[in-house]
Amino acid sequence: MEKEIRFPEIRPLNIDRYARIISTGVGLPKAVVTNQDIIDEFKLLATDRAVQYSLGIKERRWSDFDEKVEDLMMAAVEQCLETANIDIEKVDRVIFTKLFGDYQVPATSIGLLRKFKAKKGIPAFDICSACSGFMHAMDLAIRYVATGDDYVLILGGSVIAKCVRLWKSPDPKTVFLFGDAIAAMLIGYSETKSFLASYLLTNHSLYDNAKVNFGTEFLRSGMEDLNPSIFYMRIADGNIVFNSSAKYAKVIAEKLLRETGLTMEDIDFFVTSDQSEKIWEAQLKELNIPKEKSQSLFHKYGNTVSAMSPINLHDLIVSGRLKRGNLVMMQAHGAGASSGGMIFRY
Amino acid sequence: MEKEIRFPEIRPLNIDRYARIISTGVGLPKAVVTNQDIIDEFKLLATDRAVQYSLGIKERRWSDFDEKVEDLMMAAVEQCLETANIDIEKVDRVIFTKLFGDYQVPATSIGLLRKFKAKKGIPAFDICSACSGFMHAMDLAIRYVATGDDYVLILGGSVIAKCVRLWKSPDPKTVFLFGDAIAAMLIGYSETKSFLASYLLTNHSLYDNAKVNFGTEFLRSGMEDLNPSIFYMRIADGNIVFNSSAKYAKVIAEKLLRETGLTMEDIDFFVTSDQSEKIWEAQLKELNIPKEKSQSLFHKYGNTVSAMSPINLHDLIVSGRLKRGNLVMMQAHGAGASSGGMIFRY
Repeated sequence: MEKEIRFPEIRPLNIDRYARIISTGVGLPKAVVTNQDIIDEFKLLATDRAVQYSLGIKERRWSDFDEKVEDLMMAAVEQCLETANIDIEKVDRVIFTKLFGDYQVPATSIGLLRKFKAKKGIPAFDICSACSGFMHAMDLAIRYVATGDDYVLILGGSVIAKCVRLWKSPDPKTVFLFGDAIAAMLIGYSETKSFLASYLLTNHSLYDNAKVNFGTEFLRSGMEDLNPSIFYMRIADGNIVFNSSAKYAKVIAEKLLRETGLTMEDIDFFVTSDQSEKIWEAQLKELNIPKEKSQSLFHKYGNTVSAMSPINLHDLIVSGRLKRGNLVMMQAHGAGASSGGMIFRY
Repeated sequence: MEKEIRFPEIRPLNIDRYARIISTGVGLPKAVVTNQDIIDEFKLLATDRAVQYSLGIKERRWSDFDEKVEDLMMAAVEQCLETANIDIEKVDRVIFTKLFGDYQVPATSIGLLRKFKAKKGIPAFDICSACSGFMHAMDLAIRYVATGDDYVLILGGSVIAKCVRLWKSPDPKTVFLFGDAIAAMLIGYSETKSFLASYLLTNHSLYDNAKVNFGTEFLRSGMEDLNPSIFYMRIADGNIVFNSSAKYAKVIAEKLLRETGLTMEDIDFFVTSDQSEKIWEAQLKELNIPKEKSQSLFHKYGNTVSAMSPINLHDLIVSGRLKRGNLVMMQAHGAGASSGGMIFRY
């Protein structure tokens, strides 16, 4: 399935107006859903023990039908702005990298501004880039600050539980995988350089490996009704997700280290997308990084799509492990079609 | 419905690595659909003459079920790259501002790269920002070039006809409005300054005025099937679209002119979104711009969402009316929630 793709050369950031991460936040649905809850709800032939053993997941958060995407965004942003002690009116731009929004149109980032009762008409839009979306959003934010913005608010994450719940016979291989969460990050002007390198890549030969079918392509003449499964993320081959994550982790690390002149030993923390505990471990092994320099929250939150990396970063920050001045390599990988990473001094 | 929003101050572009528009292209479905075709297909009580009189539209292009979004993107990009005499492998980034993609995941911009059989893993993602999306994409492209990219390929537009065709009883007020089209633009490094100012705004108090319901918010417990109408753009109040377009056209023009020190008389062409012929005329009237300095292709293509402005620009270029060195004010407006504009020397 996978063909040889030549990965682009890394390009230096032509930036002399610097940005830094000011603060982070996370918004989570109220309901903690255990493996047993899912087994019971969908009457599956599985045991909590087997699921934990094979996937490494214990629980995840799932939205109820009365929870909106903008509610989770609001919680994440309130935490983020409170930590920064910055009012929403100071923000120059809002970018939300979504799996689904509350609606397709308008952008859910505008729904967030309404919920905030923002008085200023802040420019805002949504991105669709699945798991790698937060790396695109961070890359965008530092370029906006470089070219004039003072504060850029970025959000990412997934709300998929309502879709799973509507789908009467969900795929038993993936129904345990996904969780709902939104991560927020405020990136703002900095007098000193913090972001040292950024790198993104795609591999179109893996375009078919993970799909959310909603779109115009599956529409067929004569269709009467749509099955709710069009909202669901279907993964064709889990091994490709595993192998490509490890492979790209290495490609991206090499590009970032060469660009910055650093070695892996200089990096204090490796923050990445943990689509499963095994995928996280495979990335560490590929890069020869000890577990103490990274972490996975997959057991607790599952695959939260573009929120995986920033939730891990947020947790390292609030737990006090990651300190200002530490060097971070942050990466995010999807099911093979898009990946990215950055090195920054927190 | 509309509340007072304080529009943000325009911020100077902190850019010393310049960009310019290198080339443009347009991809259109094969089928030209007349008003009479729609009247016949949906058995509507209307006449071609009445539709032409009230809306100013004669025909539009509608995709067939076997046409993909990536097919239209491909046609637009081939034209764009051929004009520029640039190979796809030279492109540093692809951004598609969509209404719908072929799928929700992966990004349809990656599907385009597969169709091109691109050998390089070019970073690519999709944006959701409805009608104002192309202004965001252009704004993004010049910031990418400012911070290191050489060539950024942006695309925008709408493919909605399949959705309309599935929906047995489409809204008779809006079924004539929308057309399918994809516009492409190659923005690249320039030794001289071309983009003089850029301005974007949102108004969250108009969040509910136009909706594409696909998203998690309309999902309800116990739902069995989804109606294809979730794909359709519903407009709550057409007067708001009309009034906000004229109002924002003025706000944006004033900000852009103040920032550049230019007057409206200095502008050679005003290129804008023409959601109807009347909306186009209202913008010109508000800005006191003679019709010779602008144009509307609404009669021919209808509302193509984020493709409206770039298709008008493309047509001015290929018809030879717009010449290198001309000053252009380009704007794009949606149904009120998001708008933007730029001044550039073509």
